[in-house]
Amino acid sequence: MTSPPLDIVAIGDAIVDVIATCDDAFLVAHHLPKGQMQLLDQPAADALYAAMGSARETSGGSAANTMAGVAAMGGRAGFIGQVADDQLGAIFEHDMHALGVRFATPAIADGPPTGRCLILVTPDAQRTMNTCPGASHLLRPEALDEVMIRSAAILYLEGYLWGPDLPRSAMERAVTIAHDAGRKVAFTLSESVCIAGRKEGFARMIEGGGVDLLFANEDEALQLTGRTDLTAALDVLQVKVPTLVVTRGPVGAIAVEEGRRVDGGAAPVAQIIDTTGAGDLFAAGFLTAHCRGASLDRCLSTGAIAAAEIISHFGARPEADLRQLIAL
Amino acid sequence: MTSPPLDIVAIGDAIVDVIATCDDAFLVAHHLPKGQMQLLDQPAADALYAAMGSARETSGGSAANTMAGVAAMGGRAGFIGQVADDQLGAIFEHDMHALGVRFATPAIADGPPTGRCLILVTPDAQRTMNTCPGASHLLRPEALDEVMIRSAAILYLEGYLWGPDLPRSAMERAVTIAHDAGRKVAFTLSESVCIAGRKEGFARMIEGGGVDLLFANEDEALQLTGRTDLTAALDVLQVKVPTLVVTRGPVGAIAVEEGRRVDGGAAPVAQIIDTTGAGDLFAAGFLTAHCRGASLDRCLSTGAIAAAEIISHFGARPEADLRQLIAL
Repeated sequence: MTSPPLDIVAIGDAIVDVIATCDDAFLVAHHLPKGQMQLLDQPAADALYAAMGSARETSGGSAANTMAGVAAMGGRAGFIGQVADDQLGAIFEHDMHALGVRFATPAIADGPPTGRCLILVTPDAQRTMNTCPGASHLLRPEALDEVMIRSAAILYLEGYLWGPDLPRSAMERAVTIAHDAGRKVAFTLSESVCIAGRKEGFARMIEGGGVDLLFANEDEALQLTGRTDLTAALDVLQVKVPTLVVTRGPVGAIAVEEGRRVDGGAAPVAQIIDTTGAGDLFAAGFLTAHCRGASLDRCLSTGAIAAAEIISHFGARPEADLRQLIAL
Repeated sequence: MTSPPLDIVAIGDAIVDVIATCDDAFLVAHHLPKGQMQLLDQPAADALYAAMGSARETSGGSAANTMAGVAAMGGRAGFIGQVADDQLGAIFEHDMHALGVRFATPAIADGPPTGRCLILVTPDAQRTMNTCPGASHLLRPEALDEVMIRSAAILYLEGYLWGPDLPRSAMERAVTIAHDAGRKVAFTLSESVCIAGRKEGFARMIEGGGVDLLFANEDEALQLTGRTDLTAALDVLQVKVPTLVVTRGPVGAIAVEEGRRVDGGAAPVAQIIDTTGAGDLFAAGFLTAHCRGASLDRCLSTGAIAAAEIISHFGARPEADLRQLIAL
């Protein structure tokens, strides 16, 4: 039986978010870099968890959130990521399937548990993420579903998972599979702190024509190009990737394609509660519209609507009926 | 080292809630009794979970929610309940400790997993609960922390856990310990469907002077007394327990003590999202005020404020600063 084709298949961290609120003093006391993501080993994660307030759990993972968003908007999405054979892994898998995301990476039975991201949300709605990646960093090239990758119009890769050797080699192999099948590759830089140690690798992949669609936020674009001015950074990047998308938080987002730049605004939000997943859902909206052949302008506005929904509540998985909100 | 005294120690289900939204058609299709609680075995729970939408997880358990509320309002609370040595058990334990609830019942290593309650919330904010009790029904009398029970002014028991033999015998023993130490016993009937098969047992305990403070909702009061009229049911019950509290949802609540009846109204809520935990948090507010020697009127209004907070969001654990809201 041949699987029906997909719009997008993503490779990323398969983790469960553990979300609690805190004040700024807590971040300072625990040396947590506000607004950023840091990796924790198991003992450090256990210690932070013990110090955190009462939490709620939702499935997470950056590219996984994006696929959840794509599926919620009616797109055909698949996901490849590594969970362990435990309760959090079962929660992650359930939530993917419940949204209609194709996900069949076999769970690892022996090894670290399913990854967790301890997310602290301050009253200003900023999220500070502390990831204990667990099984998710053990994604092996052999775990790739090549048929699924070949069947998707776009392969979407998450920069967070580009650091560790094993999943990076899986991603590199996935890029070859996708390109050999005539598919596009989209890449999100994920976070400026990820770029420091990975700049050369990112640059090599981008220079080598590995990326057809690059997502970055303003900080990441500056960091990757070494520029201090956004226009200069856009000039550097836009000649290297066919489609470039740079998000700017409340200011909106910019897309550049074949030298043509389009600026889009942010969508209104009654109250911003938790900014976790804003970029993930922006990408979901942009990609969903892009797969339906929408204009750059429409892709940007669809991304903005999806991002606005996700920051209006705790957690990075959509709660409102996104399909209705975006009305594509 | 002697532990400092507690206001309240509760015995109840130690479970994690798995909350998803659905429409009424889903409840009909899966034969789920709307607004009620039903017990599911593991295969039935797995099947329902597979059919449910994407979910969020928060710690739950009726009496555990009440203790979480008491602690959130500044009360000194303890909890006794059975989890398994697994990820959901660790989540339950963390959330109790994070709120300052004393909880030290050792996890069971071999046996069923930590209990889950699959909660389906319909657009009318009604919750339909499907509990797979797992380890929570294996609470043994030997697991009781007698020192903690003796140290608390009130022992609070949950009717849900009164059904299975093992935890019921633990509760009966706890009642003896508490009364021998000169403490009060509070009991919540939990749900009218629980009463049918347990009526005699409930009645025996109440008649035998086992209950000093009885919480019931209107349905439960009618069901337990076999009356069809609330005033008649109140007349029957008020002579059997020193303090009787009957909640009536949006209509408010009634307390009767030494023949004196006080009616309290419900607190305003901007938007009711999920009624899960309304009774649990009402009890938390009432008990917290009661422990500080507040008037019946004040106990009722404190309960109403706590209940209003919990139904304004998904999940049965407080999100707002309850201490500030109740301003005792």
